Amino acid sequence: MKAADSRVCVGLDPQPDLLPPHLREAPDVAAAAVEFCTGIIDATAEFAACFKPQAAYFEALAPDGLAALWEVVSYAKTAGLPVIFDCKRNDIGSTAAAYARACFGLHRQGATAQADAVTVNPYLGSDGVRPFLEVCDEIGGGVFVLVKTSNPSSGELQDLSTPGGRVYETTAALVNEWAHEAGRPGACGYSSVGAVVGATYPEQLAALRGLMPESILLVPGYGAQGAAARDVAAGFDADGLGAVVNSSRGILYAYRETGQDYRAAAAEAARTMRDEINAVLH
Amino acid sequence: MKAADSRVCVGLDPQPDLLPPHLREAPDVAAAAVEFCTGIIDATAEFAACFKPQAAYFEALAPDGLAALWEVVSYAKTAGLPVIFDCKRNDIGSTAAAYARACFGLHRQGATAQADAVTVNPYLGSDGVRPFLEVCDEIGGGVFVLVKTSNPSSGELQDLSTPGGRVYETTAALVNEWAHEAGRPGACGYSSVGAVVGATYPEQLAALRGLMPESILLVPGYGAQGAAARDVAAGFDADGLGAVVNSSRGILYAYRETGQDYRAAAAEAARTMRDEINAVLH
Repeated sequence: MKAADSRVCVGLDPQPDLLPPHLREAPDVAAAAVEFCTGIIDATAEFAACFKPQAAYFEALAPDGLAALWEVVSYAKTAGLPVIFDCKRNDIGSTAAAYARACFGLHRQGATAQADAVTVNPYLGSDGVRPFLEVCDEIGGGVFVLVKTSNPSSGELQDLSTPGGRVYETTAALVNEWAHEAGRPGACGYSSVGAVVGATYPEQLAALRGLMPESILLVPGYGAQGAAARDVAAGFDADGLGAVVNSSRGILYAYRETGQDYRAAAAEAARTMRDEINAVLH
Repeated sequence: MKAADSRVCVGLDPQPDLLPPHLREAPDVAAAAVEFCTGIIDATAEFAACFKPQAAYFEALAPDGLAALWEVVSYAKTAGLPVIFDCKRNDIGSTAAAYARACFGLHRQGATAQADAVTVNPYLGSDGVRPFLEVCDEIGGGVFVLVKTSNPSSGELQDLSTPGGRVYETTAALVNEWAHEAGRPGACGYSSVGAVVGATYPEQLAALRGLMPESILLVPGYGAQGAAARDVAAGFDADGLGAVVNSSRGILYAYRETGQDYRAAAAEAARTMRDEINAVLH
């Protein structure tokens, strides 16, 4: 964030039907996704803090989707930026350990690139998260645990009142515990255990920033999902650090609004977003 | 269940380090996983109601892991039994839709086999589940939503008290709502929306059977995780239907206890489990 002077996370969601016509009609959809994503990386790396490929869109491009994913991860790393693999995995014991190795790219054969962080879902409690933390320790990686998500129905379970506060506040307390245990190997006092907190709920974002002082926040919901720069301001610490704000569709498919080349439109959208967020920092 | 007179779900978790020596030492681990799983399917199909490949173990075998997965799914379907793909996916909107298509095997290129049901995690609420239900409608598939999981820390979030009961009871109420909306296209009055409820919490299993009368339960925790036939009895309806009980390690790796060929040991473990469960049905 400091080196790039950016808090923008560019989400890489290659949806075949939204790609520019010459890629949308390509016979090899996995190759088209790689071409699209590497074009986006080239165009936006200057304005971004990190990239976040979304597992679902690559898995949907079987049989070559995962090869495409790791090609994109590798390309983003070459651009010098960290990669968060958004896969929201969750399971227990040796199964969670297998997920962790797979999602970070620690494959038994054919490893090509490594993600810097992955997203995990906390519904199973500590048993579902600790195996990921062990792999983080081993490779210097990080996790972002879903705490309060950006979608309209996120409150159905996450907002339920409990004796210790809302469910998402209990999740936040667990994240803070895991973060504390993990120590602060990174820069600026943050641990390797981060949290996903949606930009679409600005009051909760402010409260959760306070509840998880050792966790970097990954903040989705900007742009296409409705949140603006003022909504994410409370996610940052006094130094303007501690959070990255994701936009996927608003950057990737900006060309559909502007009629420009998709790369030029994405670059402009990423630069605008970077500047809008930097302008609201303390 | 009726045709097979079995409530046994055989979990397919090919853990490279636990495979028989001739497969453990094979240079191609993905091919070894396929050989192991197809051997298990051959040996246990006679005693099983369904098979449940676990996504994590196949994803860990990149780059050929997912091809291995769909080969195993295809083989299980040829044996005439339904396949539950245990992937615990969760996301929203178009991302959830992409996951749903990927996990059921509805790939844009190279589709080979189709799963009959997939597991999903409910932390994001309805937005995370409904896109899966739309695909279920389209292909006659089903979902199993995590409600109360079998692991020791499952209570950290799932057992929290709320004004409407425990968190897992609210999840169960949501499952029941989704099940009701989905109707009962299947046999025996059950909907396409099932629930995962651990065998390791027998009292909750009994209560949850009552709260979700239209949902088939997928019950993990049998065998290696400590639950026995008497613990799962409350998961079944008066006709001895409405639940399948999973065992993975207890069947797959039975050979490590007995010294037999792995297929013979798995067959014996599956038959014993089938008979033990059938003996406690009403």
